[in-house]
Amino acid sequence: MAGNTFGQLFKLTSFGESHGRALGGVIDGCPAGIMLDIEKIQLELNRRKPGQSAIVTQRKEPDTVEIYSGIFEGKTTGTPIGFAIHNTNQKSKDYSHIKDSYRPSHADYVYDKKYGFRDYRGGGRSSARETASRVVAGAIAKQFLTNIKINAFVSQVGEMKLEKDYKELDFSKIEANPVRCPDMETANRMEEYIKSIKKQGDTIGGVITCVIQNVPIGLGEPVFDKLHAALGGAMLSINAVKGFEYGSGFHGVTMKGSEHNDSYNSDGTTTTNLSGGIQGGISNGMDIYFNVAFKPVATVLQSYETINKEGEKVTTQGKGRHDPCVVPRAVPIVEAMAAMVLADFALFARTNKI
Amino acid sequence: MAGNTFGQLFKLTSFGESHGRALGGVIDGCPAGIMLDIEKIQLELNRRKPGQSAIVTQRKEPDTVEIYSGIFEGKTTGTPIGFAIHNTNQKSKDYSHIKDSYRPSHADYVYDKKYGFRDYRGGGRSSARETASRVVAGAIAKQFLTNIKINAFVSQVGEMKLEKDYKELDFSKIEANPVRCPDMETANRMEEYIKSIKKQGDTIGGVITCVIQNVPIGLGEPVFDKLHAALGGAMLSINAVKGFEYGSGFHGVTMKGSEHNDSYNSDGTTTTNLSGGIQGGISNGMDIYFNVAFKPVATVLQSYETINKEGEKVTTQGKGRHDPCVVPRAVPIVEAMAAMVLADFALFARTNKI
Amino acid sequence: MAGNTFGQLFKLTSFGESHGRALGGVIDGCPAGIMLDIEKIQLELNRRKPGQSAIVTQRKEPDTVEIYSGIFEGKTTGTPIGFAIHNTNQKSKDYSHIKDSYRPSHADYVYDKKYGFRDYRGGGRSSARETASRVVAGAIAKQFLTNIKINAFVSQVGEMKLEKDYKELDFSKIEANPVRCPDMETANRMEEYIKSIKKQGDTIGGVITCVIQNVPIGLGEPVFDKLHAALGGAMLSINAVKGFEYGSGFHGVTMKGSEHNDSYNSDGTTTTNLSGGIQGGISNGMDIYFNVAFKPVATVLQSYETINKEGEKVTTQGKGRHDPCVVPRAVPIVEAMAAMVLADFALFARTNKI
Amino acid sequence: MAGNTFGQLFKLTSFGESHGRALGGVIDGCPAGIMLDIEKIQLELNRRKPGQSAIVTQRKEPDTVEIYSGIFEGKTTGTPIGFAIHNTNQKSKDYSHIKDSYRPSHADYVYDKKYGFRDYRGGGRSSARETASRVVAGAIAKQFLTNIKINAFVSQVGEMKLEKDYKELDFSKIEANPVRCPDMETANRMEEYIKSIKKQGDTIGGVITCVIQNVPIGLGEPVFDKLHAALGGAMLSINAVKGFEYGSGFHGVTMKGSEHNDSYNSDGTTTTNLSGGIQGGISNGMDIYFNVAFKPVATVLQSYETINKEGEKVTTQGKGRHDPCVVPRAVPIVEAMAAMVLADFALFARTNKI
Repeated sequence: MAGNTFGQLFKLTSFGESHGRALGGVIDGCPAGIMLDIEKIQLELNRRKPGQSAIVTQRKEPDTVEIYSGIFEGKTTGTPIGFAIHNTNQKSKDYSHIKDSYRPSHADYVYDKKYGFRDYRGGGRSSARETASRVVAGAIAKQFLTNIKINAFVSQVGEMKLEKDYKELDFSKIEANPVRCPDMETANRMEEYIKSIKKQGDTIGGVITCVIQNVPIGLGEPVFDKLHAALGGAMLSINAVKGFEYGSGFHGVTMKGSEHNDSYNSDGTTTTNLSGGIQGGISNGMDIYFNVAFKPVATVLQSYETINKEGEKVTTQGKGRHDPCVVPRAVPIVEAMAAMVLADFALFARTNKI
Repeated sequence: MAGNTFGQLFKLTSFGESHGRALGGVIDGCPAGIMLDIEKIQLELNRRKPGQSAIVTQRKEPDTVEIYSGIFEGKTTGTPIGFAIHNTNQKSKDYSHIKDSYRPSHADYVYDKKYGFRDYRGGGRSSARETASRVVAGAIAKQFLTNIKINAFVSQVGEMKLEKDYKELDFSKIEANPVRCPDMETANRMEEYIKSIKKQGDTIGGVITCVIQNVPIGLGEPVFDKLHAALGGAMLSINAVKGFEYGSGFHGVTMKGSEHNDSYNSDGTTTTNLSGGIQGGISNGMDIYFNVAFKPVATVLQSYETINKEGEKVTTQGKGRHDPCVVPRAVPIVEAMAAMVLADFALFARTNKI
Repeated sequence: MAGNTFGQLFKLTSFGESHGRALGGVIDGCPAGIMLDIEKIQLELNRRKPGQSAIVTQRKEPDTVEIYSGIFEGKTTGTPIGFAIHNTNQKSKDYSHIKDSYRPSHADYVYDKKYGFRDYRGGGRSSARETASRVVAGAIAKQFLTNIKINAFVSQVGEMKLEKDYKELDFSKIEANPVRCPDMETANRMEEYIKSIKKQGDTIGGVITCVIQNVPIGLGEPVFDKLHAALGGAMLSINAVKGFEYGSGFHGVTMKGSEHNDSYNSDGTTTTNLSGGIQGGISNGMDIYFNVAFKPVATVLQSYETINKEGEKVTTQGKGRHDPCVVPRAVPIVEAMAAMVLADFALFARTNKI
Repeated sequence: MAGNTFGQLFKLTSFGESHGRALGGVIDGCPAGIMLDIEKIQLELNRRKPGQSAIVTQRKEPDTVEIYSGIFEGKTTGTPIGFAIHNTNQKSKDYSHIKDSYRPSHADYVYDKKYGFRDYRGGGRSSARETASRVVAGAIAKQFLTNIKINAFVSQVGEMKLEKDYKELDFSKIEANPVRCPDMETANRMEEYIKSIKKQGDTIGGVITCVIQNVPIGLGEPVFDKLHAALGGAMLSINAVKGFEYGSGFHGVTMKGSEHNDSYNSDGTTTTNLSGGIQGGISNGMDIYFNVAFKPVATVLQSYETINKEGEKVTTQGKGRHDPCVVPRAVPIVEAMAAMVLADFALFARTNKI
């Protein structure tokens, strides 16, 4: 509601702007009794943080999470977990050039129209810096979901596509390269490509694939809160996402029912899995897999023409520290959102039956 | 929450099973003072109802909506609008063959696991018959959104694709053929194709495109409730949907930022619209457009092998009255969901500023 | 949210006006597997319905509940339970005298100001007739809460007070008299008093006491959703309620901590129970008890002066069928609201721990 | 939901324990464009903070609020306002004596049962220290509600009652004495009485009265979210509250309808105001007034017998820094909760009509 709370039982309420004092949030509804590994939370943040490799933004932020409440003697207490990540490397003067003009395909213009004015420094609340709070909450959700395995990876950069089925991949290789593509050969090509794009002062889009394994049967609520609807809504809320498909996805529209149906084995598993692990909005125990499409980052380090507040044409030079391709750093965000959705539904599922 | 309420300020809470006494719902938060045209609501229901043409299910239901409250002297009063649609043509015995076995790629199995048992008649709550309630709520939302124009249409059936840009289409032709594709030539080919699929006892997937025009600037809430995230979640909650993309969508991932950015004209409109009318999750006044992918209907009128409750293999013959292709009837549902999302955010937008 | 949904996991969304076609609602979140006794629901409705004795309104309504969904083979399915109660005995012309004028201490004036106009027939949505939906939902909640015992009764009418502790009372006598006071001697005096008030064309206030027994430890959520805060908010939402107190209540303010504290027995029970079964907002297993204050019904069958829409003074004669004292019929409503609150928190409590 | 979010459009999500690193929260939904006076927020916190006079707890906390987000160039931006108040004067070892035993009439026992263990230091989350976050949010809500005047004051301590009608009082005197009773003579007597109670190592209850003036007509939502139901629920969520009444309250039950009704003047005001400014759950523009009953603080600095985790009887000596009477410091909390309720409904009211 009103944009800054995610989830209904396992909930994150987040706050923070790109160049404000701190980002953070409150995680409410996390069950008591989880022995939290704080280091694991920080490791997830490190996967998302800027400056980690040559193909991401060079803003230097330690992104250290401070946890203020909700944990006692190492365990979650069932009370809300408040946390903050202080900003340390704001270079707000980098943004004075956009104070009065609107960057194309950014939120500058609509924020001004919606709220009457805006915190223009680094995009303010519309900056992807906000996703750090999601990663914290997702890292905690992961520790609640002890058996479920969530692995996201980059499967496409521009036209360059990873052509293997996820079952042929070794997920332990995801972190072995800066692109976060588990196929090393493809990863290398993608890395070179991103570097060449960066050299042009340009940016490029990409796709993240996410695979969720060991999901218990029965997660998801019929009708409006189908599991894939919640996953899709969650992914589409990540900055720069333009599309979502699960299971057979857009390709499935070309199939016949007789080809598309997944036959049952005696144990309730299915021989194929075009359903993508979800039937009627409810997990069926098979792997859940989906693709998330990211557009190219709007900030290009090139000269461009736009308008100012008065509607006058102005020519501006793109500046600031930005990602040439957003997908490598978005991998932990996709996982975090998936983890929060599953944690939420896992709690819901406890209320289904007498 | 818990699956049966949609929206936060303009809200539909729906109820009803395929073969129960009635479907219906409560629309809460609809502003007072709308002079409601009940006939228009019924017309939307008629677009969705079964038996309207040779290419849809032959179940005969009048789908007459009865409104119980919330309207006085023709106008909405600001109090909840309760309504029901009585089922009249249930043929529950058609379903006795699935009482103890699980239809592939249906929700039968997961419902049993989740709730301990299920209303197996016609798929119970998992039936798309539930969407009738959405169409009622959407038809009321449309009457609240007086200036906004929402047009959905079929743009793909199987491999057969409408290759025109939406701007070349005449939306007044959408209702001129049973497929609901505004290009008559393509519509005819699609219709023939669906008939041939039906003859095989098979089914086929499709894509619906939706275009929303005259949207005021400023709808959508930052971060989790971005306008496209809400639209995507809404569409993915419709039965059989496997994917959603808006603006440049999955194609956008192959583009560079310098190609993808939409330049501003002096009046705040943009020269191109790859953003799809939404920037940073907030409408920018340009056309919103998106695609929704539907899988083929799982019920095929062929013999198939599956398991029963005991996990034993059984062979069953597909029966019942079903759609060979779901997209023609899903057009008004897509529009209804879009209308509800917009009505919700239009109310929210009233709270943005002092 | 927006006034017509109660609860967060066990939820009622209600609709309906006093003189509309039907009242009803949707109960969402009721767990699957409850063998529902429909007759018990009707019996609760009969306790609330008009015309049941000489001391209540003489409007004749069968108040028959029709259940449309959510039940299969006698059991709840986990899907929403839609229901309606059709109005049959509307005498709307009784209300033409208030079409253009505002009854004192009714909602007529504020509805007109808030919504621009109002359904004036019988008070429209502001009529206590709306509480029938609550009774249906409460009756279902009671059947979910198999061990918990909820007993409400009339403990005061005007100055006439039941001076016994609830432990001295025989709750099985509550239904033995039309006042719903379990002390027969007091009940008789109250009944005579209400009759004399009625003869004067006047009305009188009263208090309902509610006692909840066998509550498991741990219901209620800390901080904003304390169990007693939810109970209090629920009771205050019932028409004509002016006050709520639990445990030591308003009397407790005069006590010292050393007198007020409840000492623990070895088994965790307490020697006294001034806490009223709730500590820190969470049930402690002791009896929960509280008082609910009802003002006198505003409609008096006397001549009175008021204003019309133009702000002109008009003299009107009170008409219509009304209760001289609202508390006897409000007893099942208090119980219903208590049952819904407990059902909601019972489901929440399942999510507290790993 | 889940206890730590208050409000639906103007929302506070709070976090923090008595002896953790920090308390704080996120205020979401605050409209953009409010020129926030941060000093005023701090002044409200100072009214609540410990150590401000001889009759309150001697814990020394600066209670300095740090605001992390949501404000730019002095104005609210419409994005969430994150804030923290760091704890500095924790004396956690004061609480080692209660680590294994349960203080009577505290939440210790139920927290252990509900969550499996508890943060026992200073009561953890169940400490009234949590209310600091409410005061911050309330202070911001007050600055949004520019015309509405909210004044709370102590009207009773133990048996000692302020016998004047609120209209005879000078609210500017509320802050003129440490009791926060605007009648100086009564305040002096109350202060002496509290000091004598403190000397005994005991505590005493009290009543706070709150008066809200200049309320626009139309705040409050019918049925479940009546304005007084929301106010009552809000007040009952404050630590130690046992009762709530508004308008004629519990006294109203003894009145007849003919006495209780408030007659209209030509301008829509009423000659009397037993309704307490609310009719049918909706503000009518008259003063809203209500009473909130607080029990005596449970911690007495005396020896007492209780049980430990094993259910064994133990004798303990009450220790720590506590208030002998909670009402003086609760005055700003009551005002804060009232302000949040009104801000929430003021935003809702914008959605009532087309």
